[in-house]
Amino acid sequence: MKQFVVIGLGRFGSSVARTLAERGFDVLAIDQDESLVQEMANVVTHAVQADATDENAMNALGLRNFDVAVVAIGADVHSNILATMILKEMGVRYVVAKALDPLHGKVLAKVGADRVIFPERDMGKRLALNLISSNVLDFIEFAPNYSIVEIKATKGMVGKTLAELQLRTRFGVNVIAVKAKDRINISPSASDEIREGDILVVIGENQSVERLRRL
Amino acid sequence: MKQFVVIGLGRFGSSVARTLAERGFDVLAIDQDESLVQEMANVVTHAVQADATDENAMNALGLRNFDVAVVAIGADVHSNILATMILKEMGVRYVVAKALDPLHGKVLAKVGADRVIFPERDMGKRLALNLISSNVLDFIEFAPNYSIVEIKATKGMVGKTLAELQLRTRFGVNVIAVKAKDRINISPSASDEIREGDILVVIGENQSVERLRRL
Amino acid sequence: MKQFVVIGLGRFGSSVARTLAERGFDVLAIDQDESLVQEMANVVTHAVQADATDENAMNALGLRNFDVAVVAIGADVHSNILATMILKEMGVRYVVAKALDPLHGKVLAKVGADRVIFPERDMGKRLALNLISSNVLDFIEFAPNYSIVEIKATKGMVGKTLAELQLRTRFGVNVIAVKAKDRINISPSASDEIREGDILVVIGENQSVERLRRL
Amino acid sequence: MKQFVVIGLGRFGSSVARTLAERGFDVLAIDQDESLVQEMANVVTHAVQADATDENAMNALGLRNFDVAVVAIGADVHSNILATMILKEMGVRYVVAKALDPLHGKVLAKVGADRVIFPERDMGKRLALNLISSNVLDFIEFAPNYSIVEIKATKGMVGKTLAELQLRTRFGVNVIAVKAKDRINISPSASDEIREGDILVVIGENQSVERLRRL
Amino acid sequence: MKQFVVIGLGRFGSSVARTLAERGFDVLAIDQDESLVQEMANVVTHAVQADATDENAMNALGLRNFDVAVVAIGADVHSNILATMILKEMGVRYVVAKALDPLHGKVLAKVGADRVIFPERDMGKRLALNLISSNVLDFIEFAPNYSIVEIKATKGMVGKTLAELQLRTRFGVNVIAVKAKDRINISPSASDEIREGDILVVIGENQSVERLRRL
Amino acid sequence: MKQFVVIGLGRFGSSVARTLAERGFDVLAIDQDESLVQEMANVVTHAVQADATDENAMNALGLRNFDVAVVAIGADVHSNILATMILKEMGVRYVVAKALDPLHGKVLAKVGADRVIFPERDMGKRLALNLISSNVLDFIEFAPNYSIVEIKATKGMVGKTLAELQLRTRFGVNVIAVKAKDRINISPSASDEIREGDILVVIGENQSVERLRRL
Amino acid sequence: MKQFVVIGLGRFGSSVARTLAERGFDVLAIDQDESLVQEMANVVTHAVQADATDENAMNALGLRNFDVAVVAIGADVHSNILATMILKEMGVRYVVAKALDPLHGKVLAKVGADRVIFPERDMGKRLALNLISSNVLDFIEFAPNYSIVEIKATKGMVGKTLAELQLRTRFGVNVIAVKAKDRINISPSASDEIREGDILVVIGENQSVERLRRL
Amino acid sequence: MKQFVVIGLGRFGSSVARTLAERGFDVLAIDQDESLVQEMANVVTHAVQADATDENAMNALGLRNFDVAVVAIGADVHSNILATMILKEMGVRYVVAKALDPLHGKVLAKVGADRVIFPERDMGKRLALNLISSNVLDFIEFAPNYSIVEIKATKGMVGKTLAELQLRTRFGVNVIAVKAKDRINISPSASDEIREGDILVVIGENQSVERLRRL
Repeated sequence: MKQFVVIGLGRFGSSVARTLAERGFDVLAIDQDESLVQEMANVVTHAVQADATDENAMNALGLRNFDVAVVAIGADVHSNILATMILKEMGVRYVVAKALDPLHGKVLAKVGADRVIFPERDMGKRLALNLISSNVLDFIEFAPNYSIVEIKATKGMVGKTLAELQLRTRFGVNVIAVKAKDRINISPSASDEIREGDILVVIGENQSVERLRRL
Repeated sequence: MKQFVVIGLGRFGSSVARTLAERGFDVLAIDQDESLVQEMANVVTHAVQADATDENAMNALGLRNFDVAVVAIGADVHSNILATMILKEMGVRYVVAKALDPLHGKVLAKVGADRVIFPERDMGKRLALNLISSNVLDFIEFAPNYSIVEIKATKGMVGKTLAELQLRTRFGVNVIAVKAKDRINISPSASDEIREGDILVVIGENQSVERLRRL
Repeated sequence: MKQFVVIGLGRFGSSVARTLAERGFDVLAIDQDESLVQEMANVVTHAVQADATDENAMNALGLRNFDVAVVAIGADVHSNILATMILKEMGVRYVVAKALDPLHGKVLAKVGADRVIFPERDMGKRLALNLISSNVLDFIEFAPNYSIVEIKATKGMVGKTLAELQLRTRFGVNVIAVKAKDRINISPSASDEIREGDILVVIGENQSVERLRRL
Repeated sequence: MKQFVVIGLGRFGSSVARTLAERGFDVLAIDQDESLVQEMANVVTHAVQADATDENAMNALGLRNFDVAVVAIGADVHSNILATMILKEMGVRYVVAKALDPLHGKVLAKVGADRVIFPERDMGKRLALNLISSNVLDFIEFAPNYSIVEIKATKGMVGKTLAELQLRTRFGVNVIAVKAKDRINISPSASDEIREGDILVVIGENQSVERLRRL
Repeated sequence: MKQFVVIGLGRFGSSVARTLAERGFDVLAIDQDESLVQEMANVVTHAVQADATDENAMNALGLRNFDVAVVAIGADVHSNILATMILKEMGVRYVVAKALDPLHGKVLAKVGADRVIFPERDMGKRLALNLISSNVLDFIEFAPNYSIVEIKATKGMVGKTLAELQLRTRFGVNVIAVKAKDRINISPSASDEIREGDILVVIGENQSVERLRRL
Repeated sequence: MKQFVVIGLGRFGSSVARTLAERGFDVLAIDQDESLVQEMANVVTHAVQADATDENAMNALGLRNFDVAVVAIGADVHSNILATMILKEMGVRYVVAKALDPLHGKVLAKVGADRVIFPERDMGKRLALNLISSNVLDFIEFAPNYSIVEIKATKGMVGKTLAELQLRTRFGVNVIAVKAKDRINISPSASDEIREGDILVVIGENQSVERLRRL
Repeated sequence: MKQFVVIGLGRFGSSVARTLAERGFDVLAIDQDESLVQEMANVVTHAVQADATDENAMNALGLRNFDVAVVAIGADVHSNILATMILKEMGVRYVVAKALDPLHGKVLAKVGADRVIFPERDMGKRLALNLISSNVLDFIEFAPNYSIVEIKATKGMVGKTLAELQLRTRFGVNVIAVKAKDRINISPSASDEIREGDILVVIGENQSVERLRRL
Repeated sequence: MKQFVVIGLGRFGSSVARTLAERGFDVLAIDQDESLVQEMANVVTHAVQADATDENAMNALGLRNFDVAVVAIGADVHSNILATMILKEMGVRYVVAKALDPLHGKVLAKVGADRVIFPERDMGKRLALNLISSNVLDFIEFAPNYSIVEIKATKGMVGKTLAELQLRTRFGVNVIAVKAKDRINISPSASDEIREGDILVVIGENQSVERLRRL
């Protein structure tokens, strides 16, 4: 099983560490701040107070043997960069680093980061897309120009079967799941009837989805 | 068309505002910091320097007529709370507010926020899920216990049709799309053959998906 | 007998706690600052150093069993709000919270405060009313438009009985007590004679009192 | 008519100034902070930005001609003391000064303050007394050992006349007013009947009032 | 023998304490800063770390029994004032306090200081007077308009007796001492002859001295 | 007439400048702080805002032509040293510099200061000597082991002539002046009678003076 | 002729810029601090106030056309790194960057710096080598294990020719120059005689030089 | 063997100490900061935490017996000056002090420094000279107007002997060494042939070298 190290235990980093631990993975959580380390101690396999820009300290923790490192240091840009570089030089296979802005991201790539992420920017974008239409509950752009959206069943849909709605013909989209209050149908068939309160999970090109949203 | 106001133009808020503007929506962007306002001025319809905790100032900007407000103030928790309350009291229909932690989120709900979001926590969770398996490219938990994941075609899949793979029978999951280098098929049929490099977008219960991932 | 908890031991909170203790009530006094806690330790039943925004800590102190909580945190507005919310959620029956200004007061009400007080504003008002006339020693506005005031006996009053003064007829006010140097008469009768140095405690509408004050 | 000067326009000082102005008195409001002065400019007769520890500046404002000065400077203890001394030396007849603690109060008295007040301590005491019993709505200690309290009519009182209640005989207290929802009776007679929701305003010795409260 | 307490061990206070100790007097030296107390510990009878604004602490040190207290606190004006007041209230017979400026000095007098000193101002004045003439070595204004000055013997004086110099007749000054390299004559007689290098210590009115200086 | 420049206009420096100006001398007063310069502008011949560590600025002010410079900079030790060095290098004849402690004084001497003074230490010493005896009003150590002191006439002295007191015979001291309420006699003769309230100004060796003080 | 840009005008950067300008080269000097820019304005061709981490600003200054850039930013490590990366990405041919320590230097190399320098470390090393022997005046390690040193002629050398000294035979070093008071001989011949005060500039392996130094 | 003390262990001072220790000399390293002392403890003979402005502490360390002291204190100018003065007064034979700017350097000389160095300025100059020509690899100005430079062999030189190149005749310079990849020839003879990649170390007057550089 993969082994993870998470460096920087602020809101973002601690959420990464916690989620991995909840799925049963081994996580080593590191921060300079003793109180943040204490909070994580009950959640992850190991939590240690250490300076991620100190090569000797990182070596002593045996980081070279980890599969994936997440550098989530947020406040101190220089430490974020140094930690990323040190981890790559030590031989960590896959290093993900959090960047503040594109310039910072470029530096991270140059010192070896395998993947650079911009959490605030990405969440901002997600929220914006999601807000655009009030009957779209969640919106995921899973590829350029293609999205998966959740749509509340409109009055016109209630009482009709998926076959009757002809969404693929009329809008070029597929219904991949139907959420009701108490169950989720991930293999919707043409004869399934839409009821009030149902939520349709739909896949399609952005412009097709857009037309459906405006219904 | 809906009208949006975004308050607080840090990394998260400016990303919200920029995305809305790029999709053609009217956005009013507000911050206390003149330099952040300047940066947004070329991007959104209107960008003004104002104090969102000053009711008179907010009234003068006509905020009551906006459909959706996003309170993205991050540094000053009290201003974040006051702005949310003022916007609701003024009659803004839908107010989304960014919270630092669950307690803060609870206060926001009590002063009227229609939706409370935790960007760092959510992005951390997303990244963690995404990192768990190297052949899962993206992972979306679209309902409790149900996920949509992207899976790189393994060697064993290449050359087989979806019918032959029997993913629904063997794992209880449905393939809802297949991504190839240059096109995306959102209506995969049983006779479609998987080629090297294809990415299967799959829907299913978490434990079903988990079993597939470990293949 | 009622049990009280006072959170925040600055000048205002420590005065609340001290007064309750002097009247024989059980008081639990809480502050983050160890030195303020030490000062209260000899005065109240229990004084502990704790963070009132930490739900677990508050639970461990058994706050749910207290009848009345006074949130007197002054410096940190957000802590003041969180403490108020936590206490209500834990089930404290009656929570009084100190506000800095009306907006803050509104948030406190929304997160559940049973009563919001503005000590500085109220004391300022009291002092102002009290200063308006030099022969009014103390002034209490006990209902909108009605006051109780203390008035030094003027030369014209000395030697006359209350009956002769006809204050009800001439000014529409009642004398509810007469303070002399060494005793207080709370059942003044019509035949009581006013002496030099007496102080009349009078009840009436503001404008009636005003006319009397200007005598 | 008396002329007032208020020095220090924080929450306490601005409340003093505002109340005096609302009652129609001339008020000169002074602070070092231009923004606080601006806020007061629409409320009081004159509001000026000045340093109250600068004798020449105070002379230029003609302060010697004012009847009453309120020194409400809170943050800077030394300025509070100097302003008090300067005002007395200039010949202001009556100077009220706000103190932080008893030692500070003693210094203020020695440099000439005619009256020293401790707003936070006094409000804390008032709140405590008021909280002691849930059917006492407000509590005023108008002399050592004597109080005026507001008491919600208990079930046993409703439907009875004041004569029947025999409060003077049984508890040694006098009813000086009865508040109903929409009117206040400040000359209650023996035949007045108590109704549900009435509030009795009662005067008496502390121990008498205490016995009544516990009813 | 007199007993002294010195409060505040900066450059001025420590010099007071050191000089008293060198003359054989008992000195209690007090400061808040432990390191300053350590430095004095080898010099004076007792040196303790204490807060001079804490009445209980001052009582515990038995300050009431001291004859003279010097309040040399420089940085914190309010502590300087409180310490002075507390010492007088405790019954110290003679309290000398160091002031920053005339207003501060006035407050010190009002809270009971028996003597207020302005070291920087006085030393500045002394230096200035001393610099005015290059043949005046030291200059003491021992009463308004009268000074004692030291004057280097000019060439014209050398070889003459005091009688021949006729300083009293020509300038209205008296020679009260003559300093030579290795001895001091404090009873100069008319027949004493001035030699090269002698210094005349002279008493007289300022204008008389001035005329002599310009010789 | 001599020309003076004073650099650093704190309490010490401004006192130097003011005293020189009052005696009619030309003074150029310099400080970095514009507000301190403003205060001096009405007192001295010229007051300018300038950086005394900027050689060009000092040259432009023509400092080379001044006779005496007083470097009274207190807060910034390095500026104090640089200003002293620059003034000497520019050719100012006599530079007096204020030192914080002996090490600092040594540096000032090495960079050329003609005289180094320690105002706080010297005033502390003066005050201490002066406090030693309560009937010594002022005490000046005018040479090692020799002092001039002011002594209040004791009861035993009143009514006697200086001849009868035989102070020179009994104590080895000379009376050099007698201060009465309204005049000062600087040529006291043997037949002068001491009256109640007189103050004797006496010169003598320290041990002689000490014996007299203890009378 | 080459064109230079120097970014960061502290002591190091301004020395670089000044030296280049003195040799007649075109230099553009950039700093964020206006006062540092002013000081350079008279020294170099162009001095501008700009933020070197702002790509647009750098583009507007036409930096792509410069041959050599020196990044001498010292205080802000991140800006130092960003500026280096931006300059390389813009196409500046040769970028020299100043590093604080080896880790920082490694980052600079990864973002594209053509040369990384450590001024303090290098100067420290130079000084140390130079101090090792008192008759070595300057010491340059021009390759690993090889140095050029200046050696004061010892008494034993004076009056001898280079041939007689046999330095190559005895020590394995060559004399490459001889400095006398008023001239330098860079082509020393075997017959040149060493005089008192001459300085020999010698090249050789470190251990050879060491033996000579100990002579 | 010489004994060294280095005071101030920042980047410059630690580089001095390390280099001396690596050459086998005894070094005492001193700093106020314990963590810097710890880092040096493994490198030099002795490393101690001490305040170099405390004469007693310096005496206790026996500094008088050291041959050379390097004062490398950078942040606190006054401590840098005091340490230099104290070391000279204690009798250290040779004291080198690091200065920030010429004025500071002048003070250091006046308090006794035997040598004053300006590392940043000197390294800046060195870098600038070195950058002037791209085929000059290093550049040392070893006397006014004379330099030693390293020059990459140009294409025209390759394959020719030094005799054929006639550098002394054509340019007035001497070749004092030839560096190849794996060896250095410090006695180049006329018949030595230049190969591709060779570096010529050349001595000459600046203008001669300049002409050669432009080749």
